[in-house]
Amino acid sequence: MSKYWNERVQRLEPYVPGEQPKDKKYVKLNTNENPYPPSPKVIRAIKEAADDRLRLYPDPEAEQLRAALADHYHLSPAHVFIGNGSDEVLAFSFMSFFSPEKPVMFADITYSFYKVYADLCALRPEIIPLDEAFRIPVQDFCRPGGGVVIPNPNAPTGRGITTESIRKILEADPDRVVIIDEAYVNFGGTSVVPLVKEYPNLLVVQTLSKFCALAGIRVGFAFGSPELIDGLNRLKNSINSYTIDRLALTGARAAVEDLSYSRHMAERVITTREQAERSLRELGFQIIPSESNFIFITHPDYEAEQLFNQLKQKGILVRYFHQPRISNYLRVTIGTDNEMNQLIAAMKKLLNH
Amino acid sequence: MSKYWNERVQRLEPYVPGEQPKDKKYVKLNTNENPYPPSPKVIRAIKEAADDRLRLYPDPEAEQLRAALADHYHLSPAHVFIGNGSDEVLAFSFMSFFSPEKPVMFADITYSFYKVYADLCALRPEIIPLDEAFRIPVQDFCRPGGGVVIPNPNAPTGRGITTESIRKILEADPDRVVIIDEAYVNFGGTSVVPLVKEYPNLLVVQTLSKFCALAGIRVGFAFGSPELIDGLNRLKNSINSYTIDRLALTGARAAVEDLSYSRHMAERVITTREQAERSLRELGFQIIPSESNFIFITHPDYEAEQLFNQLKQKGILVRYFHQPRISNYLRVTIGTDNEMNQLIAAMKKLLNH
Repeated sequence: MSKYWNERVQRLEPYVPGEQPKDKKYVKLNTNENPYPPSPKVIRAIKEAADDRLRLYPDPEAEQLRAALADHYHLSPAHVFIGNGSDEVLAFSFMSFFSPEKPVMFADITYSFYKVYADLCALRPEIIPLDEAFRIPVQDFCRPGGGVVIPNPNAPTGRGITTESIRKILEADPDRVVIIDEAYVNFGGTSVVPLVKEYPNLLVVQTLSKFCALAGIRVGFAFGSPELIDGLNRLKNSINSYTIDRLALTGARAAVEDLSYSRHMAERVITTREQAERSLRELGFQIIPSESNFIFITHPDYEAEQLFNQLKQKGILVRYFHQPRISNYLRVTIGTDNEMNQLIAAMKKLLNH
Repeated sequence: MSKYWNERVQRLEPYVPGEQPKDKKYVKLNTNENPYPPSPKVIRAIKEAADDRLRLYPDPEAEQLRAALADHYHLSPAHVFIGNGSDEVLAFSFMSFFSPEKPVMFADITYSFYKVYADLCALRPEIIPLDEAFRIPVQDFCRPGGGVVIPNPNAPTGRGITTESIRKILEADPDRVVIIDEAYVNFGGTSVVPLVKEYPNLLVVQTLSKFCALAGIRVGFAFGSPELIDGLNRLKNSINSYTIDRLALTGARAAVEDLSYSRHMAERVITTREQAERSLRELGFQIIPSESNFIFITHPDYEAEQLFNQLKQKGILVRYFHQPRISNYLRVTIGTDNEMNQLIAAMKKLLNH
């Protein structure tokens, strides 16, 4: 604590991301990075853009990237906002559309950054408990309020929510903004981006970090009605006119123009996930049905926290959340087949199989 | 206006950056970009970093870059914060250290983003008029209050403030944070970074955009006491854990390790500035003494707005601010000798010299 911190900074409990170890010795299954490299076209485009033009500011409107995304989704660029990773897009959305007067709803088990954004903006969150199987209780999200944020699929469970359920939540109160966070949607879920033309209160957030294997260049998007996108631009242009650098803009555009590559890689991840699920079930693990590039697992006979520590000692990093209801679960990112085999071999030893 | 915008977004008047024309035909002297390219070592380092590692998140702590900066300034990494451009660093500083209860002081003629940040945070700014010669009235900034922000040199005037004056302002009220914005300090000013060990209420903000010719990669810094840096980290980690991408981190580090290159280029800019000042004075322009990579000029017989429009027609972009006290001034970025010669030739025609 410092006398120089204002009330906002004093009340914050910042988000703690998964470890990014610097010794590089780990099998890293803890931050949901894609195990496969980005498209070679992305690498090539970035190398070509790394020249004397770096002395110039990037395009603050990210016009070419927005046009490419609009094109892909059959929207107009006025439906597209670009941010420095989907976390920034989410933070800006909380700062733009939610108010302390009315509660913002999100699940008790969900992306833990939402609670941090709520604190940042001095909001009153209304925490909705997931059901026993970690499903979204759709009716509870249909009560009127100040806003809703739901990841599809949810993190850290990996469970999806149907488009029909999202429609119900959107229609329950057309005066509040509903954010659907699709960070992981391309690993088996169904995107609701096409609905943004139909529902002016829908904001869909995506990222290049996972699906396009570009966590290293920090690009996220929001899709929504032009009035929502305008609001985000007003907020962004009151913080930082140039949030996305030239190299990231170039790489992102190349990625959006080569999504078939990313789809192919995502299929490999899904195949590996299904194989890993079978192997882990054989070891007695219970697994939440996943539509994502990670799985959420628990074992009736072994403590998750202990397994987490034992795996770390063996050079394998997964994610453990010391949190009610999920304190006996591990979130495991789907790596390469080889990485998953290492995980399963390590688990076999730990479980004395 | 939209019913989905909260009170904050409704009250904002976003910052409008200088034009970034997309047709690329202009002599671009409007956004204070460096006319010389970044160090070849920066380009090389970025090209080498553009590989499959882009699938991985960047280091959220930017440890290597902070160490390089700390090394350069004989500080510890705990004195250094890294942001996505100095605008983001400034926004985070306003969000962390200033409160609506006590006024934040800045000049009437200064970087216009400060007013936007104040609106963003619902602060009450206390606007201090510069004197007739656009100098900072030091005594007026010595009154107690909630915070101070001063660019050294000031924008858009280019005028500097002495270290002795900054000490006076720091000492006048040790309980409030004083931000010195050194975006342009390396073109003839004197940095107060060494003072951060002495004054826990001093935050010095810098950027790679101008001095290191890296506006395209978006990296800014703050130097301050560890408690100020901690506050900025709390805020940043409540918005976005990974604000700086891998390529920008790599390029920034290479730039900091090759500052002699940037100093050499800055000397060329200063030489060109002095030459341009002489030529413009011969045409009857009055020029505020500049310690920056831009000059602020006015002509007793010609309207600045008209000159701005006429220059634009001739393919030369400068910056005009439609604002009290400076509505007859133009801010001209120092370009290459060739670009400045084009500007002066165009001015000669417009002024019938």
